[in-house]
Amino acid sequence: MSEFIHDDFLLKTQTARRLYHEFAEGLPIIDYHCHLDPHELADDRPFESLTQVWLASDPYKHRAMRIAGVPERLITGDATDREKFDAWAATVPQTVGNPLFHWTALELKRYFGITERLSAESADRVWETCNALLRSPGYTARRLITRANVQCLCTSDRLEDDLDSHARLAQSDFAARVLPSLRVDDCETVDRALVAQRLDVFQQAGCRLADHALDDFGSDNLRFLARAYRQRGWIMQLHIGAQRQTSSRLRRLAGPAGGYATIGRSCDIPGLCRFLDDLEKDACLPRMILYPLNPADYAALATLTGSFAEDGLRGKIQFGPAWWYNDHALGIRQQLDALASYGLLSAFIGMTTDSRSFLSMTRHEYFRRVLCDWLGDQVQAGTLPEDDQLLGPLVRAVAYENARRWLFLDVTEKR
Amino acid sequence: MSEFIHDDFLLKTQTARRLYHEFAEGLPIIDYHCHLDPHELADDRPFESLTQVWLASDPYKHRAMRIAGVPERLITGDATDREKFDAWAATVPQTVGNPLFHWTALELKRYFGITERLSAESADRVWETCNALLRSPGYTARRLITRANVQCLCTSDRLEDDLDSHARLAQSDFAARVLPSLRVDDCETVDRALVAQRLDVFQQAGCRLADHALDDFGSDNLRFLARAYRQRGWIMQLHIGAQRQTSSRLRRLAGPAGGYATIGRSCDIPGLCRFLDDLEKDACLPRMILYPLNPADYAALATLTGSFAEDGLRGKIQFGPAWWYNDHALGIRQQLDALASYGLLSAFIGMTTDSRSFLSMTRHEYFRRVLCDWLGDQVQAGTLPEDDQLLGPLVRAVAYENARRWLFLDVTEKR
Amino acid sequence: MSEFIHDDFLLKTQTARRLYHEFAEGLPIIDYHCHLDPHELADDRPFESLTQVWLASDPYKHRAMRIAGVPERLITGDATDREKFDAWAATVPQTVGNPLFHWTALELKRYFGITERLSAESADRVWETCNALLRSPGYTARRLITRANVQCLCTSDRLEDDLDSHARLAQSDFAARVLPSLRVDDCETVDRALVAQRLDVFQQAGCRLADHALDDFGSDNLRFLARAYRQRGWIMQLHIGAQRQTSSRLRRLAGPAGGYATIGRSCDIPGLCRFLDDLEKDACLPRMILYPLNPADYAALATLTGSFAEDGLRGKIQFGPAWWYNDHALGIRQQLDALASYGLLSAFIGMTTDSRSFLSMTRHEYFRRVLCDWLGDQVQAGTLPEDDQLLGPLVRAVAYENARRWLFLDVTEKR
Repeated sequence: MSEFIHDDFLLKTQTARRLYHEFAEGLPIIDYHCHLDPHELADDRPFESLTQVWLASDPYKHRAMRIAGVPERLITGDATDREKFDAWAATVPQTVGNPLFHWTALELKRYFGITERLSAESADRVWETCNALLRSPGYTARRLITRANVQCLCTSDRLEDDLDSHARLAQSDFAARVLPSLRVDDCETVDRALVAQRLDVFQQAGCRLADHALDDFGSDNLRFLARAYRQRGWIMQLHIGAQRQTSSRLRRLAGPAGGYATIGRSCDIPGLCRFLDDLEKDACLPRMILYPLNPADYAALATLTGSFAEDGLRGKIQFGPAWWYNDHALGIRQQLDALASYGLLSAFIGMTTDSRSFLSMTRHEYFRRVLCDWLGDQVQAGTLPEDDQLLGPLVRAVAYENARRWLFLDVTEKR
Repeated sequence: MSEFIHDDFLLKTQTARRLYHEFAEGLPIIDYHCHLDPHELADDRPFESLTQVWLASDPYKHRAMRIAGVPERLITGDATDREKFDAWAATVPQTVGNPLFHWTALELKRYFGITERLSAESADRVWETCNALLRSPGYTARRLITRANVQCLCTSDRLEDDLDSHARLAQSDFAARVLPSLRVDDCETVDRALVAQRLDVFQQAGCRLADHALDDFGSDNLRFLARAYRQRGWIMQLHIGAQRQTSSRLRRLAGPAGGYATIGRSCDIPGLCRFLDDLEKDACLPRMILYPLNPADYAALATLTGSFAEDGLRGKIQFGPAWWYNDHALGIRQQLDALASYGLLSAFIGMTTDSRSFLSMTRHEYFRRVLCDWLGDQVQAGTLPEDDQLLGPLVRAVAYENARRWLFLDVTEKR
Repeated sequence: MSEFIHDDFLLKTQTARRLYHEFAEGLPIIDYHCHLDPHELADDRPFESLTQVWLASDPYKHRAMRIAGVPERLITGDATDREKFDAWAATVPQTVGNPLFHWTALELKRYFGITERLSAESADRVWETCNALLRSPGYTARRLITRANVQCLCTSDRLEDDLDSHARLAQSDFAARVLPSLRVDDCETVDRALVAQRLDVFQQAGCRLADHALDDFGSDNLRFLARAYRQRGWIMQLHIGAQRQTSSRLRRLAGPAGGYATIGRSCDIPGLCRFLDDLEKDACLPRMILYPLNPADYAALATLTGSFAEDGLRGKIQFGPAWWYNDHALGIRQQLDALASYGLLSAFIGMTTDSRSFLSMTRHEYFRRVLCDWLGDQVQAGTLPEDDQLLGPLVRAVAYENARRWLFLDVTEKR
């Protein structure tokens, strides 16, 4: 049995392999939206165990364990780190077909050099190997980020956060640029005077993106905030279509980001259009990234990228990368299919992890492999020309360059 | 021209062929939700003609004939059996691309050994061959079920049904276990006191599943019934998103299950979540099978399998197999894609026919072939490892074992 | 690097190639719904430049340029023809993955014999070659249509249009039959008495189709019009799910058909069923073509083709070809997948361009290639038999014969 994660993992065709190895593989990472904890980066937190760095903050794994019938005590409860790890190890073989099966193998190989598959049988060995490495100096929060060749990442910060960790990071010798990005949970309650002040503080700290999770686009405050973002040249991100109210029991046990949320109804397109148009009428429409959670909305939102435009600005409305539960080979392909067919793939800013885990940066590799494989399939089907001068730059643009140019313009280099 | 239904029908890759022939082919069938008539099973009904056993109770064929312009008299009207058969035979070549083209070939081959394709030209020969066999003792209702290697099937019974046929079947020497399952058409009108009584009668008769077709999850009676199911350890099935009010004319001519229904709007996810949460809050959430009819809901409902859980119970919320109009190669693949990507394929209870026809059990073969072919494609694409120790048990679990363990626990063996 | 648009463009398998070249390639075109200007056809308009014939009336290209950041002046503004062409030429390489990349190459090759790819680099040469040809007599409006082997096309005409151009065309020696088709934009405002009169005038001019773009099926006037169509044996087309209100700014700059519309919410299936049923109850349901813009509705509307029927009439309810933003390889495949799986592909009336551009008839070639490739894939997967006697007639039927028979019955031949 050959190794599962080999050099050409997910790369079916010669074209895919060539595109990946020649154009994508060595590129740095810009992770423009994630939920890494800036305090842990500022403190350069070491991790006591594989469970701490790998399971504790990964709600995807929690969900899989719940479906597998693992008792909640072993997932988010008071079990020991080892008990929790064993529960996960026994679940891994049951995830076959799910992206967790890939991510698990990829993360163990890239960060810890482990090539055997995780299961109840291999749990002991994997636990020992990883924990030994975690005790070494090369596995702190920052070193894990550096190891993944991250050039820049944007955390998700509340309006009231003091951004002290970001200040410490800016003054540190950490090679990766860590920027705050603003997350507004409930725009109805924000105090407009205060907001303007805080936005300036965020701006000072290098913030260039704001983020809202919502399904109703009618709010006046939302319009007020969008205008404020535009004024500052920020990008506005809309995370659309999450159904967060599911199990009250799991919310109580596992907290608000516990992985039990689901995909909600499809997007209110007329409402979204009205929101964008209202802003554009006043010349206050900021650049936008739309992340629909329901893939039934992919065609509509990919098409919407051509409905609002600005002279001289490429890709003003972005159809964001396959978000959250869609971040798997199928979902990435569906996003690429929709974006290419209904919009311009070449203007796409590409992948971001949206993750809370320090080991998730391998998902950029995952995305890049799927992207190259998707292109290889198109070439094989004759829908794209076999032409590296066309496709090579496309790969580089989507994997890295577009995000750098579009998102950060002036701030990618350390000040 | 080679035979259409050959040993490796639908199995594109070596992996698919190996998985099917080594792990799936010989397995018995558990058909946990169908509409076979228990009276016909109890009476061991013989069939007068191919039309009686094959066309009269198959609304799929009726639909296809209607699209082809066949007059209703020849579909559900007063035409002779032979006229109706001829109308169908002439329609079959027009179904190319539709699952009916596959099912027709598969059913004629598996039950009657016919290898030529049905058409106006071959109609005479097929009619004679099949009717001759139907006159033999090996083709009664029960023998057709036995012939398909069915271990257990669950019919769909009304609350007021006396279950007398089920009693006769339980006392008979029929090898397949036939269990009643409860179908509640309008839960608003049920008398709660009466329900409790009837549920006990159903429980006595081996019932373990209840079934509701609905799109509104707000009813108090629905919650009452769900609690009653949970109390008895039953499974609750929700058939979601059917638009049954279409042509009044066809309803008048062809009856309520006439095949003219269509796929309705997408699911009210917030309402469904509220329903599940209300039950879970009171520790009264039974095991669930969710069958969305609109494939636009597949991602959402596949994800929902991770939103409610119970310690120690694997796959508590099931995303059911591709239902009704989705039960074709494409629909099965879409269901597998969604379930694997958003949930755990390994916990899936697999196929059921939902059919009224005694010749439909071949759809389990159809499903198993598509499942193995889908796995073979994944291996070829490098998204699954080539490892029979991993994939073989997965095939067996989804094709048979999960249904047996999850659904019937104590009742699969004849009492 | 081999030529991109070669003889077997988009045809992956031997079966696809054989089916295309033997059964589809030479067929004439019936374009039963387009927006070509009948005045330009009647006048046999010559075109001053490539921009006039190719860019001015193609909102798809406008959208792509907007996404690429091209200033509106260079798209629909007061820039010169050459400036606009250069802006488009520079955009083309950025459309890789989009159908525009295919259409561009196909149109340049088929009409102008150009085989090099259009880009900023090749812009000069392409501009000169095409404009030289456009000055020759073989490139007027009518000659472009003749060149594409169009047998019949139906323009889209307002109730108040005098149809004078159609009269001139009917009396001309133009080989292609040009028929008016009725487009009603706002059925609420129509005067019923006047409508009956005008419908007779349209009928006299050869009109056989009417067209409504709508999402609300509750209108009495809509029912009135549908009855009137049925009375005259017309076909009713419903274009469902477009969100036309997006950017007020672009509407002001680019006019009402400016390409900034997007895909709207999914279809009100219950309302649509009620509309169809109301008509059928009174025996007034005309033949229908349903064009959903949101692909999330494909399964539902493909299924609906089996919900209303008429004795002796094949394919009474049509699920129309992939419409507007869905008219690309992926969208065509999804439409074929849905129609074949949920309905009868063999009854499908096939492609129409819905285009305003005289160079768009190549999209019939595009559709036919995708159709044959799709069939070839099915044969390779074993889901269709390798049988040209079955598949050849299917190709001819969907590519041409069904449209001819179903749509025009008595009017395809010049009177």
